[in-house]
Amino acid sequence: MTKIVIVGAGMMGTATTFPLADNGHSVHLVGTHLDTEIIQSCKSQQYHPKLKRAIPPGVRPYFIEEIADAVQGAEIIVSGVNSLGVHWMAKTIGPLLLPGQKIIAVTKGLEVDAQGNLIILPDVLASELPAEIRDQVKLAAIGGPCIAGELAGRRRTCVVFGARDAKVVELLATAFRTDYYHICTTTELVGLEYCAALKNAYAMAVGIAYGILQKSGGVDAAGANGHNLAAAIFGQSCSEMGVLLKIAAANQGFALGLPGAGDLFVTTNGGRTSRLGQLLGAGHSLAEARQIMVNETLEAVEIIRAINSALPKLERDGRLSPGALPLMRSLIEVIVQGKPVDLALESFSACL
Amino acid sequence: MTKIVIVGAGMMGTATTFPLADNGHSVHLVGTHLDTEIIQSCKSQQYHPKLKRAIPPGVRPYFIEEIADAVQGAEIIVSGVNSLGVHWMAKTIGPLLLPGQKIIAVTKGLEVDAQGNLIILPDVLASELPAEIRDQVKLAAIGGPCIAGELAGRRRTCVVFGARDAKVVELLATAFRTDYYHICTTTELVGLEYCAALKNAYAMAVGIAYGILQKSGGVDAAGANGHNLAAAIFGQSCSEMGVLLKIAAANQGFALGLPGAGDLFVTTNGGRTSRLGQLLGAGHSLAEARQIMVNETLEAVEIIRAINSALPKLERDGRLSPGALPLMRSLIEVIVQGKPVDLALESFSACL
Repeated sequence: MTKIVIVGAGMMGTATTFPLADNGHSVHLVGTHLDTEIIQSCKSQQYHPKLKRAIPPGVRPYFIEEIADAVQGAEIIVSGVNSLGVHWMAKTIGPLLLPGQKIIAVTKGLEVDAQGNLIILPDVLASELPAEIRDQVKLAAIGGPCIAGELAGRRRTCVVFGARDAKVVELLATAFRTDYYHICTTTELVGLEYCAALKNAYAMAVGIAYGILQKSGGVDAAGANGHNLAAAIFGQSCSEMGVLLKIAAANQGFALGLPGAGDLFVTTNGGRTSRLGQLLGAGHSLAEARQIMVNETLEAVEIIRAINSALPKLERDGRLSPGALPLMRSLIEVIVQGKPVDLALESFSACL
Repeated sequence: MTKIVIVGAGMMGTATTFPLADNGHSVHLVGTHLDTEIIQSCKSQQYHPKLKRAIPPGVRPYFIEEIADAVQGAEIIVSGVNSLGVHWMAKTIGPLLLPGQKIIAVTKGLEVDAQGNLIILPDVLASELPAEIRDQVKLAAIGGPCIAGELAGRRRTCVVFGARDAKVVELLATAFRTDYYHICTTTELVGLEYCAALKNAYAMAVGIAYGILQKSGGVDAAGANGHNLAAAIFGQSCSEMGVLLKIAAANQGFALGLPGAGDLFVTTNGGRTSRLGQLLGAGHSLAEARQIMVNETLEAVEIIRAINSALPKLERDGRLSPGALPLMRSLIEVIVQGKPVDLALESFSACL
């Protein structure tokens, strides 16, 4: 039995308590300052209102003010915050960390540093930890296709755990693995995290196809849908993930597997990222879509902005040709430049 | 204006008449012996009963007995038959061919020769043509995500035309390209055709996930669906397409792009291949599924059988390790060996 603390009681953080509790670990769930109502409900009724499900018996909920108690003696800490919470996470957890602890993040995103380089979130987290502990803890992340509500429903799920240290990633996988939560492992953390982040941008793009369909009057009398366009965007998306992996000197195979095509597939099946794409495809501006989707975290917008910020340096360094990534460039036009949707279908290609 | 003849008046063959007619070509649609009722309807009412749509004005329908008239002077012949019709096509069209004609096939499949080698259908077609004409005609094929009913509805669609001869493929693309039918081209015919065939096997696999969900009682009270499992199968499918492309010395990038991930995506969106997977996932045997889907062409079954026949030689030659392709092997168990569905999720991997 291992003591494991999840920080962030949103859907995905809380979903990880299910395999952990089923494996008999001591599981502590700490809400952030945004999760007060959730933790109140968990404490009083063992019920998570967003997951619409009882949390597993034995999972102990904590308010953010109780985090020091919760973290004490934990072997594994799960970072369950979203991409905007990574800096908060580092500042909050940093002073409480002890050498040898492992931090595994469900957070998906990429940031750009001052020099215009894309940085994976585990490295962002590490950079914000106190210098004296930074190299004493081990960082890991989870990629692959996983809708939180399905994991919490104990539906069969296959994910990828990644950490640069092979022993660490195997230890983590052993702690989490159940007969419904299948885990394969990799030490190629950059490839895994690129896919985890990029898939949100590209899932939004697939959603655009269905917004275009809606705008044009929907399915016609003979039943013609918009799947051909959605599929073209899907295929181009996987190719462009491959291009971006190559630029990052990562294994292009990730674009094909669970972290790339697999995670993109699941993210196109509804959810807020698809919905944002549909709104844009139907003709709404980003500002209008934001008003309609008020209070929703729009990871796709963040990642598209990050890529936009990284492009000039990549082109200056000769690592990216001006014609590469036509779909991403059309997403940048919509999200960063506020232009109407104009997918560059004529620039889509057969393969990399 | 080019004279173009489509042989095979099924959904896909007929759908190609829409961009061709819109481009002002002289378009002749010849039904096979299975299409008599369709051609009757096209002749009397200009209406295609399966597409549920009027055929474009100017498209001239022909019964199979009129094929010699229809083909005379054609520059391009579209092979619109399904994978089981390729041999018939070669025997029927062979004696009518003239040097310089181009044949472009919508047919998707792979066959195995007597030595256990996988052969793409354009090469099967060529091998059955009369020896004196075989090298005098140019063969091409269409891959990428395209549901016929959407193309016939003039929905935006991106496909890949492939031919070993770069001039031929560009000429063909120019004849077919419209503002809704986007065409990119490749001279790597083998990679294109592998993806076109394999995607049927793997789309069936994705369908299995939804059959398993159905068998287990469907979506639960908290809304948990089976998308995580479907997405895991989707990602593993793309990886395995990549493995098979590598074995064929083809560009693995096709597995990522329009021909691989793109075509797989569209094929999982309903249709007979998904339905077969769902029936198998729900616990039906192949024999039972065949009874339920009587009169439907099950391309997935053919391609899985072909791969099964090719595996021994690939392993004997050391080109494939016994642990490779765990998902395909589980499909073979179901389709060839009649075993119950048992997906090898624990063998799925992060990447190639």
